[in-house]
Amino acid sequence: MPGSPAPLVISLGDPAGIGPEIAAKAWAARDTAALPPFFVVGDPRAITAVWTGPLATIDAPDRAADVFARALPVLTVGDAGRVAPGTPQPDGTRAAVEALEAAVGLARSGAASAVVTGPVAKAQLYQAGFTHPGQTEFVAERCGVARENAVMMLAGPTLRVVPVTTHIAFAAVPDALSVELIVAKARVTARALARDFGIARPRLAFAGLNPHAGEDGTMGREEIEVIRPAIAQLVGDGIDARGPFAADSLFHARARAGYDAAICPYHDQALIPLKTLHFDEGVNMTLGLPIVRTAPDHGTAFDIAGQDRAEAGATIHAIRLAAEAAARRASS
Amino acid sequence: MPGSPAPLVISLGDPAGIGPEIAAKAWAARDTAALPPFFVVGDPRAITAVWTGPLATIDAPDRAADVFARALPVLTVGDAGRVAPGTPQPDGTRAAVEALEAAVGLARSGAASAVVTGPVAKAQLYQAGFTHPGQTEFVAERCGVARENAVMMLAGPTLRVVPVTTHIAFAAVPDALSVELIVAKARVTARALARDFGIARPRLAFAGLNPHAGEDGTMGREEIEVIRPAIAQLVGDGIDARGPFAADSLFHARARAGYDAAICPYHDQALIPLKTLHFDEGVNMTLGLPIVRTAPDHGTAFDIAGQDRAEAGATIHAIRLAAEAAARRASS
Repeated sequence: MPGSPAPLVISLGDPAGIGPEIAAKAWAARDTAALPPFFVVGDPRAITAVWTGPLATIDAPDRAADVFARALPVLTVGDAGRVAPGTPQPDGTRAAVEALEAAVGLARSGAASAVVTGPVAKAQLYQAGFTHPGQTEFVAERCGVARENAVMMLAGPTLRVVPVTTHIAFAAVPDALSVELIVAKARVTARALARDFGIARPRLAFAGLNPHAGEDGTMGREEIEVIRPAIAQLVGDGIDARGPFAADSLFHARARAGYDAAICPYHDQALIPLKTLHFDEGVNMTLGLPIVRTAPDHGTAFDIAGQDRAEAGATIHAIRLAAEAAARRASS
Repeated sequence: MPGSPAPLVISLGDPAGIGPEIAAKAWAARDTAALPPFFVVGDPRAITAVWTGPLATIDAPDRAADVFARALPVLTVGDAGRVAPGTPQPDGTRAAVEALEAAVGLARSGAASAVVTGPVAKAQLYQAGFTHPGQTEFVAERCGVARENAVMMLAGPTLRVVPVTTHIAFAAVPDALSVELIVAKARVTARALARDFGIARPRLAFAGLNPHAGEDGTMGREEIEVIRPAIAQLVGDGIDARGPFAADSLFHARARAGYDAAICPYHDQALIPLKTLHFDEGVNMTLGLPIVRTAPDHGTAFDIAGQDRAEAGATIHAIRLAAEAAARRASS
């Protein structure tokens, strides 16, 4: 039907992880969760190894909508070899990367309206020769976007957080922070909140790096030398940027009501409140890309793979968030 | 009556802050909150400046129980001068220190069963010549306990956290961590959980310093070089010490059910989850002292002092926790 939106695509992630199971469970919840049509890319054997529900292999994305009501549509990409849930294999990991690459390509071409990426394990990826720090950087590169302009946001029902630095050692954080980096991440965040979340004038709250946001320089000077100048520059650009605030008082319910996203200097400062509040609902969204990309904010969980114990809640939220963002972009 | 427990004592904190108001409000809630008898020490004018309920000045702690049902008992200590809520004065700050000192002395002597300290402002204290980093260190010194053996625990209804380092710059944390420091803090914590909380075999969960607890040394080595050896030493002592765990996955509801206290390398890692979950209920308890000392986990809030807007919830929790700990010590 002309004009109907393209389906979403889900890359299965590592075949030995919980990715296939949660994709299947999300499909099984399509009616109760009111999910839009989607299809998965990967080796169907990764799903049949852990799930007995109906699968329908499709030969093109535009077939997904037709079968979605009665079966999980699968576009076959990659050869995972023998799938043993919980025991990652090099073949499976390579298949996961092929599926990821295919999914991104389908979204770039418009054949899919958005990408939801299933979980992969970095240790396995590196062993298989993957040279990017993670899926986010891989997706950014395939989209022609510089890494520093691809921004990781974690979103839950009552909180959105953006870590300025991500997977680096604690001790490396102070030197990694700069006015330029904070400004770049915040600009991408503000644009994405408007474009993908429909927030006309997003409010950004900045957390300090030091306890009590440094107490006027008595416990660290990064607030004075880096964070405040970044906020001033953003305010000069017309962005509603506030802070820096003491991080420990920034995430309770009343505080959260005062902003649309919290910009945090480092990983744990952003991830601790998000996962404390929304452990089973957290969505990882990459901002600043020409495509919409989300992911459930959890790993492969090899330890519970194949046991029918994985929760699909975060994947369902990731699908919904991706669909909403894609719809906003299509209508703007 | 011989054998009845001594009353608790509350130091009013800075007369220009919300300390006097929340002490009075806690008394007003004595029946609904089922609070044991307590009295305050300080200048009664700090209370009459913000509260019109019944006060009864007493000349000795053992008079508190008699009047507690009909009036807030006050033992007059210090001269706050002219009290202007919201505008701290040197006289008031000095009076707050005198009240703190008196309260600790009463608890040391047994005339009070425990101390709850009202909020003071460090900037005011330092201007008034106070030479301790904060009230905790002052109380420790007056009790003859070395600072490193006085441990700050933050407690809420579903979470207890202990930061190993507290009010130091973020960049100073890695060097401040040591096996000895972690072991010392954890030992005090384990003993206090048994003695003051009645937990026969307390479970301590240790948070890593780096994202994902360092991922086997790929993002920082403090877990390998400092935290793991500390845990091994504690386990050797017979303490149930676990981890290190990725901090971002340590504070959701299921995770919290798995331990009695989380030991965190730095301030915000401990305080973010505590205040995110329990912003209006957080209690600061000093472990390792010969007396029981708690405090509401918030500051003087000069900006709302004298406006009848202060919440007494944290003070009520602090009173209750102190009373429970004092009762456990008395019966052991």
